[in-house]
Amino acid sequence: MSRKILVVGAGKSTSYLLDYFLEKASAENLLLTVVDKDLSQIPSSISEHPNCKAISLDIFNEEARKNAIAESDIVVSMLPARFHIKLAEDCITFKKHLVTASYVSPEIKAMEHRVKENNLVFMNEVGLDPGIDHMSAMQVIDSIREKGGKMLLFESFTGGLVAPESDTNLWNYKFTWNPRNVVMAGHGGTAKFIQEGTYKYIPYHRLFRRTEFFEIEGYGKFEGYANRDSLNYREAYGLQDALTIYRGTMRRVGFSKAWNMFVQLGMTDDSYTVEDSENLTNREFVNLFLPYSPTDSVELKLRHYLKIDQDDIMWEKLKELNLFDDTKKVNLKNATPAQILQKILEDSWTLQSDDKDMIVMYHKFGYEINGEKKQIDSNMAVIGEDRVHTAMAKTVGLPTAIATLLILNKKIMTPGVQIPISKEIYAPILSELKNYGIVFKEFEVPYVGYNPDSVST
Amino acid sequence: MSRKILVVGAGKSTSYLLDYFLEKASAENLLLTVVDKDLSQIPSSISEHPNCKAISLDIFNEEARKNAIAESDIVVSMLPARFHIKLAEDCITFKKHLVTASYVSPEIKAMEHRVKENNLVFMNEVGLDPGIDHMSAMQVIDSIREKGGKMLLFESFTGGLVAPESDTNLWNYKFTWNPRNVVMAGHGGTAKFIQEGTYKYIPYHRLFRRTEFFEIEGYGKFEGYANRDSLNYREAYGLQDALTIYRGTMRRVGFSKAWNMFVQLGMTDDSYTVEDSENLTNREFVNLFLPYSPTDSVELKLRHYLKIDQDDIMWEKLKELNLFDDTKKVNLKNATPAQILQKILEDSWTLQSDDKDMIVMYHKFGYEINGEKKQIDSNMAVIGEDRVHTAMAKTVGLPTAIATLLILNKKIMTPGVQIPISKEIYAPILSELKNYGIVFKEFEVPYVGYNPDSVST
Repeated sequence: MSRKILVVGAGKSTSYLLDYFLEKASAENLLLTVVDKDLSQIPSSISEHPNCKAISLDIFNEEARKNAIAESDIVVSMLPARFHIKLAEDCITFKKHLVTASYVSPEIKAMEHRVKENNLVFMNEVGLDPGIDHMSAMQVIDSIREKGGKMLLFESFTGGLVAPESDTNLWNYKFTWNPRNVVMAGHGGTAKFIQEGTYKYIPYHRLFRRTEFFEIEGYGKFEGYANRDSLNYREAYGLQDALTIYRGTMRRVGFSKAWNMFVQLGMTDDSYTVEDSENLTNREFVNLFLPYSPTDSVELKLRHYLKIDQDDIMWEKLKELNLFDDTKKVNLKNATPAQILQKILEDSWTLQSDDKDMIVMYHKFGYEINGEKKQIDSNMAVIGEDRVHTAMAKTVGLPTAIATLLILNKKIMTPGVQIPISKEIYAPILSELKNYGIVFKEFEVPYVGYNPDSVST
Repeated sequence: MSRKILVVGAGKSTSYLLDYFLEKASAENLLLTVVDKDLSQIPSSISEHPNCKAISLDIFNEEARKNAIAESDIVVSMLPARFHIKLAEDCITFKKHLVTASYVSPEIKAMEHRVKENNLVFMNEVGLDPGIDHMSAMQVIDSIREKGGKMLLFESFTGGLVAPESDTNLWNYKFTWNPRNVVMAGHGGTAKFIQEGTYKYIPYHRLFRRTEFFEIEGYGKFEGYANRDSLNYREAYGLQDALTIYRGTMRRVGFSKAWNMFVQLGMTDDSYTVEDSENLTNREFVNLFLPYSPTDSVELKLRHYLKIDQDDIMWEKLKELNLFDDTKKVNLKNATPAQILQKILEDSWTLQSDDKDMIVMYHKFGYEINGEKKQIDSNMAVIGEDRVHTAMAKTVGLPTAIATLLILNKKIMTPGVQIPISKEIYAPILSELKNYGIVFKEFEVPYVGYNPDSVST
């Protein structure tokens, strides 16, 4: 009898996930049920596969939802994180395992006891970031500890970028995921981390000027800025004694310095709506944030305000976005500055039909062994195939799918609300990911501690 | 039979208020009842006056509160604004007028109908700012309109500062009021105003770098930064058509540029608590906001981070605050950066026993009359007498007291929830204030519109 996998939600990150299940379907005897409110989301190559059923389902329809879950052996939720809890409750009721690529919410965390009691696995954070970052980091950290090493430093950066062959603008950036998340990056609190034993705090308006640089062989240089709370996984990773813990987001070199112009102007503010936003031109939008002058141009006022020299590439980056266009209208009612900025950026940064995306990840592990300080750097780069089979969909969907099959096959058994930080989980997933070209390269490098020279202030 | 005035709250801004009532007590036949939770707040010169009763009263004691209000003819609330509503409800019940120096809260505003129905006056915002600013501005605006002029521009700035004779530090500033309000100035939203018909928005991290300069004869130069919402009183003042409306806070020249260093570092953040704040030294506090370095000093890192030249007075301003002291401990548990900064500043900026304070106000009125553009500037400066009879207590307390007596004497009659913007109210109050040295000087100046040259960016 075939094993039934229920996938709830068929959004843009599910291409590789569904492909993986169908590729394994006959060997593993899988029957896939994909449900979505909008059936047109599901490509015919999937829905017409003999081992697949595609069903239109609204998860707010209690009966339909419960039926679908009751009939399955394991549930994969690819819905936005806030909807997981409905499925999770049903999974307890019908004793089904659950897999998601989302952060463990406090509501899911609170189910720990009931999940264990029912001998279920609720696997979360098993996509890219969170997901592959946890697994690839813990594999190295555990191997260092197995050798008797003591962790001193951990830094970890992930970025969703445009592939080099599609990198055609001065920002070296296009939206490969949710543009809103990019515009809002860094909002919601001061960035906090620890460097050589000292806590450090970076306010939002300085975040994009405290970057660190990396190089990935064959892919060039990158920079990273700090995430809001680098210390979230300090205990989960067992890094309570590490002197440096720093997690961040990767961009191409120069992006953050340029992005900081928007921050300085106040264009990323999402806390108020702009008067008469609908009728503003791009140029008038820029002028909202500049002092009044009866004579000077918006251009000169902006150059002066942000101290941009005549020959500074920053200026060309702004011009490339048509920010000074006095004919182009914003056309957004009651919009915040962040919403208007997003719209202007989407005009320039939307992926074209033949554009490819890229995922990069970079870890640094500093440790001490036999009185000697050492460091391992490891990194990964994945290029998308096309606009459906993106690097993002691959790195989110594949580990989720692999984890699902491992649970179904009782290779991952430990019950509870899990994230993939134990060897039982990460070892087989990382091993299978290699077969799909998701590979980390490791390098032994001299231990430099937290390197101030790699920081541009 | 004597008229009974109930004053609720005898905090530090009530000295002039109580003095005024007692000075007028025999001529006006007043009996003053001053109540406070803490009787020791009330000086014996007041409580032992034959026309005064001082009573200990907790406003949360329903019966005592209602009795006190029932027995009075008019109620003055000098409590923090959030407590007014309790008194206001009783004032409706017992049909008593109410006077406060606080902003009209939505709760008080919602009583408008009941206040009018009972033919009562609830006078609010009749202190300094809000208060004297409303009155002095509306007097000039009304006089311009009476002449047939049309308002083009209105700017208004108020500052609570240290008197020139007590101005002994490089910041030209001491705390003359609530230090917390100073540290938190500008928090809570983007500053918004209108300049020459264009809306302008300044994010918090730029607020203190967009200042404007003023001179008050005999008192020297000042600067002003924008308040959060300059447009709050646009309709109340009838300025819907004015091209420029800008309201702000006054400081001595150079304060804002120096304060901006704290903003840039992130030291005014009140949204999170610092790890182990209790045991930090001043120097360690500063270092929280600077990049790690194995070799460079906190001083050099800060100079580099904020781009402070060797000979920049900004540096001396920081040193004066003992910011780099590695022996002085913060001594505050679970404190936010803003709370720690406040404590460090209090060590330097607390008024000494013989220090005096100063209140300054500056208005600009641009208008058009008979096809000609004109401008009137008006300003006021008040110096405190001592630490009890401060300029702040005088400019808050006197107009409140004067308004109370005017209502009692039926000189202010219009019922409703009022602010002092009509001639019936401001004319007699401003006239009486002159007798106490609170005087505006008016100057006709050339109309320059919003003057970009007075703006430092």
